[in-house]
Amino acid sequence: MAENGKSATEKVPAVANPLSEQPSEIASNINYHAQFSPHFSPFKFEPEQAFFATAESVRDRLVKQWNETFLHYHKVDPKQTYYLSMEYLQGRALTNAIGNLDIQNAYAEALNKLGHELEEIAEQEKDAALGNGGLGRLASCFLDSMATLNLPAWGYGLRYKYGLFKQLITKQGQEEIAEDWLEKFSPWEVVRHDIVFPVRFFGSIEINPDGSRKWVGGEVVQALAYDVPIPGYKTKNTISLRLWEAKGRAEDFNLFQFNDGQYESAAQLHSRAQQICAVLYPGDATEDGKLLRLKQQFFLCSASLQDIILRFKERRSGKGSWKWSEFPSKVAVQLNDTHPTLAIPELMRLLMDDERLGWDEAWDVTTRTIAYTNHTVLPEALEKWSQPVMWKLLPRHMEIIEEIDKRFLAMINATRPDLEHKLPTMRVLDHNPQKPVVRMANLCVVSAHTVNGVAQLHSDILKAELFADYVSIWPTKFQNKTNGITPRRWLRFCSPELSNIITKWLKTDQWVTNLDLLSGLREFADNADFQDEWASAKMANKQRLAQYILRVTGVSIDPNSLFDIQVKRIHEYKRQLLNILGAIYRYKKLKEMSPELRKNTTSRTIMIGGKAFATYTNAKRIVKLVNDVGAVVNNDPEVNSYLKVVFVPNYNVSVAEMLIPGSELSQHISTAGMEASGTSNMKFALNGCLIIGTLDGANVEIREEIGEENFFLFGARADEVPQLRKDRENGLVRTQFIIAICELRVVAFN
Amino acid sequence: MAENGKSATEKVPAVANPLSEQPSEIASNINYHAQFSPHFSPFKFEPEQAFFATAESVRDRLVKQWNETFLHYHKVDPKQTYYLSMEYLQGRALTNAIGNLDIQNAYAEALNKLGHELEEIAEQEKDAALGNGGLGRLASCFLDSMATLNLPAWGYGLRYKYGLFKQLITKQGQEEIAEDWLEKFSPWEVVRHDIVFPVRFFGSIEINPDGSRKWVGGEVVQALAYDVPIPGYKTKNTISLRLWEAKGRAEDFNLFQFNDGQYESAAQLHSRAQQICAVLYPGDATEDGKLLRLKQQFFLCSASLQDIILRFKERRSGKGSWKWSEFPSKVAVQLNDTHPTLAIPELMRLLMDDERLGWDEAWDVTTRTIAYTNHTVLPEALEKWSQPVMWKLLPRHMEIIEEIDKRFLAMINATRPDLEHKLPTMRVLDHNPQKPVVRMANLCVVSAHTVNGVAQLHSDILKAELFADYVSIWPTKFQNKTNGITPRRWLRFCSPELSNIITKWLKTDQWVTNLDLLSGLREFADNADFQDEWASAKMANKQRLAQYILRVTGVSIDPNSLFDIQVKRIHEYKRQLLNILGAIYRYKKLKEMSPELRKNTTSRTIMIGGKAFATYTNAKRIVKLVNDVGAVVNNDPEVNSYLKVVFVPNYNVSVAEMLIPGSELSQHISTAGMEASGTSNMKFALNGCLIIGTLDGANVEIREEIGEENFFLFGARADEVPQLRKDRENGLVRTQFIIAICELRVVAFN
Repeated sequence: MAENGKSATEKVPAVANPLSEQPSEIASNINYHAQFSPHFSPFKFEPEQAFFATAESVRDRLVKQWNETFLHYHKVDPKQTYYLSMEYLQGRALTNAIGNLDIQNAYAEALNKLGHELEEIAEQEKDAALGNGGLGRLASCFLDSMATLNLPAWGYGLRYKYGLFKQLITKQGQEEIAEDWLEKFSPWEVVRHDIVFPVRFFGSIEINPDGSRKWVGGEVVQALAYDVPIPGYKTKNTISLRLWEAKGRAEDFNLFQFNDGQYESAAQLHSRAQQICAVLYPGDATEDGKLLRLKQQFFLCSASLQDIILRFKERRSGKGSWKWSEFPSKVAVQLNDTHPTLAIPELMRLLMDDERLGWDEAWDVTTRTIAYTNHTVLPEALEKWSQPVMWKLLPRHMEIIEEIDKRFLAMINATRPDLEHKLPTMRVLDHNPQKPVVRMANLCVVSAHTVNGVAQLHSDILKAELFADYVSIWPTKFQNKTNGITPRRWLRFCSPELSNIITKWLKTDQWVTNLDLLSGLREFADNADFQDEWASAKMANKQRLAQYILRVTGVSIDPNSLFDIQVKRIHEYKRQLLNILGAIYRYKKLKEMSPELRKNTTSRTIMIGGKAFATYTNAKRIVKLVNDVGAVVNNDPEVNSYLKVVFVPNYNVSVAEMLIPGSELSQHISTAGMEASGTSNMKFALNGCLIIGTLDGANVEIREEIGEENFFLFGARADEVPQLRKDRENGLVRTQFIIAICELRVVAFN
Repeated sequence: MAENGKSATEKVPAVANPLSEQPSEIASNINYHAQFSPHFSPFKFEPEQAFFATAESVRDRLVKQWNETFLHYHKVDPKQTYYLSMEYLQGRALTNAIGNLDIQNAYAEALNKLGHELEEIAEQEKDAALGNGGLGRLASCFLDSMATLNLPAWGYGLRYKYGLFKQLITKQGQEEIAEDWLEKFSPWEVVRHDIVFPVRFFGSIEINPDGSRKWVGGEVVQALAYDVPIPGYKTKNTISLRLWEAKGRAEDFNLFQFNDGQYESAAQLHSRAQQICAVLYPGDATEDGKLLRLKQQFFLCSASLQDIILRFKERRSGKGSWKWSEFPSKVAVQLNDTHPTLAIPELMRLLMDDERLGWDEAWDVTTRTIAYTNHTVLPEALEKWSQPVMWKLLPRHMEIIEEIDKRFLAMINATRPDLEHKLPTMRVLDHNPQKPVVRMANLCVVSAHTVNGVAQLHSDILKAELFADYVSIWPTKFQNKTNGITPRRWLRFCSPELSNIITKWLKTDQWVTNLDLLSGLREFADNADFQDEWASAKMANKQRLAQYILRVTGVSIDPNSLFDIQVKRIHEYKRQLLNILGAIYRYKKLKEMSPELRKNTTSRTIMIGGKAFATYTNAKRIVKLVNDVGAVVNNDPEVNSYLKVVFVPNYNVSVAEMLIPGSELSQHISTAGMEASGTSNMKFALNGCLIIGTLDGANVEIREEIGEENFFLFGARADEVPQLRKDRENGLVRTQFIIAICELRVVAFN
């Protein structure tokens, strides 16, 4: 370990230039942060301290670029995209930042001067725990791409203190504990103490003398902005992921009650504020849970829109007179799934009640501003909020939603009487007396100027089924935007070996921003040198992965075996169960074989990873089953050189960056028609991994792109599924599965 | 306002040397922090942002000196003093820091370059709200002096999020709201994420097989260290005020409960931890309030002692073999009043249960380590903790305290049978069956090697009355240490005009560290030039004060009137009531006078300021009375050019720095024998202000020093008070006062 004490300081003069690209000056800047931005005791410079100091040194660069980008857009005032998402699966930032800044080598050298290895330092970083699955990672990939494409774009999200959860694997299966990613601090955040907006909940509506309405009373929490700078690749464009933290003000702390021993009441508003950003997707089985989720969604929408409107005014007011009708030419708000749907009535409210626009003008501005991305056709995942809960929490918004519903009804009655019989399912409000709800997807479709699915198949299904009735009203509203992934994180930085080979053979690194160039590798497909280099890169990644697996699970796996990987959220429709049943079958077959026969098989390491939602019992049973099967198979000396089954704990972005480059076969076997896109399939494909998959989500387009001969097609097609479901009654199949789990658990324990 | 945007950056290159004393380089460093340590939106450089950036630039210097001081003492391993105090009334730090670093002019010039005035920037700072009254300010003055005297010393305290309270004055009198000094952040704190100690509450005692004992179970919160660097005046010695924050770990957050909608239970340990450092002196009328106060005290003691022991071991282990008996030669722990008394049993516990020392050895170490400062003889202020509460919260400590009590008893029985009849009041434990308590002062006297009072009179009273019985056992244990104040904050920096005159006439500024030199001014006492300069400095300070009063109260006061000031905590024994009764009397007399007669009087502005403890009803009525009297007097055109009565709201260190240099007469009129020392009397005297006072606390010594002719003596002497009390039954007097208040309130409203 290097000593960062007095002597080190004397050797390296304090910061000459925080933006220098000279390793010695970078070392000096790291040293400056280790000494002068102290978050630890002095004279310690172990990997953890070195990571924070290095990150802060990199942050200097990001801040500089962020500021310049901000100033530039403030002057130019282009149309800016605001991406509203409940999740961002950011992963680690250090490697990505110095990669995008194209300054890895200088940082590696600087750290060497200070006695450290960049890789070891980078591994100190905790993943930003702000997401759950593909939807969140998509949001983060979009940010990287938008920055790289020099687009004026910002993401808005929430700063969850404990993220989703950290997955521990014990004998009992999955245990969830609070993710401690903010326990020390995040060096990538820039707090903005001057960017604070009040967000109201509950309360009532006051009618002004002029008939306009005002939402008053209730409880008000403060939204405080934290900016995470998002650098583009080899460009100065550095955009923002602005995360909101909910907090109470000092004056909301009731000193009188506290002095009276009523500690919980005294800090009640503070506690309630803290609950809002405590965790991503808190359990919603209870009424309170539902209310909290709704609070989270509204908190994100309200704070973001107040901020967007303020920025619009700031930029416009620099340009002389302006009109609200210009808003949609300066602001695009993209809703990532229905979670931020409340942006629609909130924008209406802000425009009407605060800015005093009439309904028609406000509606025109809102509908030209908002666009909606659908991420699911699963009925249970399509949000419906109870009307009574909404009236309680957001009375003014319910008024506005009722008006939207009323006007939609009137429009259909007036212009499309042929659709009247469809209105019960098309309306925003479902007045089912047992359970009156607001249908968020319908509100989005009615209010957004554009609605997109996230893969061709999924978009087709949306138009043909879920939103079919609307298509005839707004034929051009529905689009497809197949998800994408950033090639920086998912190839260039997570597999530098393979990247270098690609660059060498293509004689350019332009593929990092233009993946079409990869088709240039086709001509070398049969070239033995190319194949050798490719294979050696894969082997290096497999060895690194094997070391990681040994470290986190204690299971030793053979890099010469076939690495067969399925990593994604654990869900029945994603069919990890089918995979593990296959593993059991494979195990039993191997057991039945003679030793000679076994020698002719291909050794295989099956890795399964992913988090099961905390309250999703069947998914958690699958996690336990995979672990139990692993315990049996891996400890069976007769076959464990031919088969290993490993559950990779706490799957997250950093784990994915380790697993994907090392994989050879990957499983994307969701029941066709269920997966909207899937994006990990793209990451595996990009890393030269074969896919076994169903014709679901983006698998369809990947298969078209890479050719049928390079895709192991599996299972029924989407159009066959409904018939299959009818043939075999769904409940029965589920029950059989569950019985199978129980039986197999017994097997596993023998 | 300067613009700190791109252009400013380009003009001033980023940090050349954070320790440079060149104004242009300092400007650059301030700019660096404004840009790269961003806590606000970019391109704003208004006074608030400029303050934080300036403070961070100064912090760089402090951190550098702090680190070097730390390293030096770590190597040299001197005996180090640790001052344990529940309060530190730090006030603002910027002016003090650049003053002590002797770099004010360069900073003033640097800020000019950036378009700001140092004074305006300094006024942006919020007072660190960690204290209540003289005891807390004494602690802060000690830190400044110890740093200046190159002593190895650290202070330990708690990081109260909301301090004591912020005093608002309304028609209803005093209102208390939470002090928001940490709402943004404090630039003077350096968090130490690696310095975290567990602190246990409740639980039970486990007996190990070898008979040793272990405290287990209960609830454990984490103590996280924040260091506030304390620079000495014109020296590199920069010591630490280490403040503890109580917090829960991420893993203490119960995710299962949270997902189940049990939000309060889920975060219960976190909430309970947050309560510990929420406010200074939370109300203790309820059982819960008492428990919380006790928790605070133990939290301070336990975290600090764990830290002290760790440092002792670190320093000793660098020196080869060591023995626990060396501890008292390396560590002195000074208890500021009885609040940190639990340091005694906690040190015993750590030594016996963790370090495995026997009782005798642990007792020897503890008693040679701990010293105790008494601050009060008021019976209601002498802490007594309920034994049942102690057993509940700190069972192991109660065992130890019982043992201390038992051994003290045995010692008296064996060696001093003459004192046996005194044991009921001398013992640590009071087993009164109605209300069994632990007497903290007795525990301190029995366990500490030294006990001191804080003024000669007070120390005499301690020896003659409160601790008289112990004096014959330990005649050398009792000492006097009259309180002191730092001449840096209380003259050099708060009145630069007067300081410059003193330096000019003494032809040296050595008086800043050696106040004895001020006697050299005696020879100029009658020099007209000296008198003129002195008077003009006083007038400048009075004008500044008048502007301040106008700003915060709206009352315009005449700098040519006599400024008569009483500022201190509002308390019956401090007799602000007497002062305001005097004001009423003066008002009535003026009303009775003819206009001609009035013209012969000296115009007077009476200013009273101070906080009344939130639950101290009579004190709050006094605050209201002062304000009500002011409302009448100040609005009476007949006399208001001869008399004004102003209540100065939210009295704190910064307000004191404004008031004291502008005062001419100051009131220190506590009932004799009640005030232990008083320290504001010294501050007023140091600023050339006359005192009207009783022979109480340090008034006695001040009078001896400055001469009887320069002191307006007032009221009864301490030795006369008991007889006076007997003569006029106390309750009756109080009642009469209260009646007087009510009557006068009526007068005031007329």
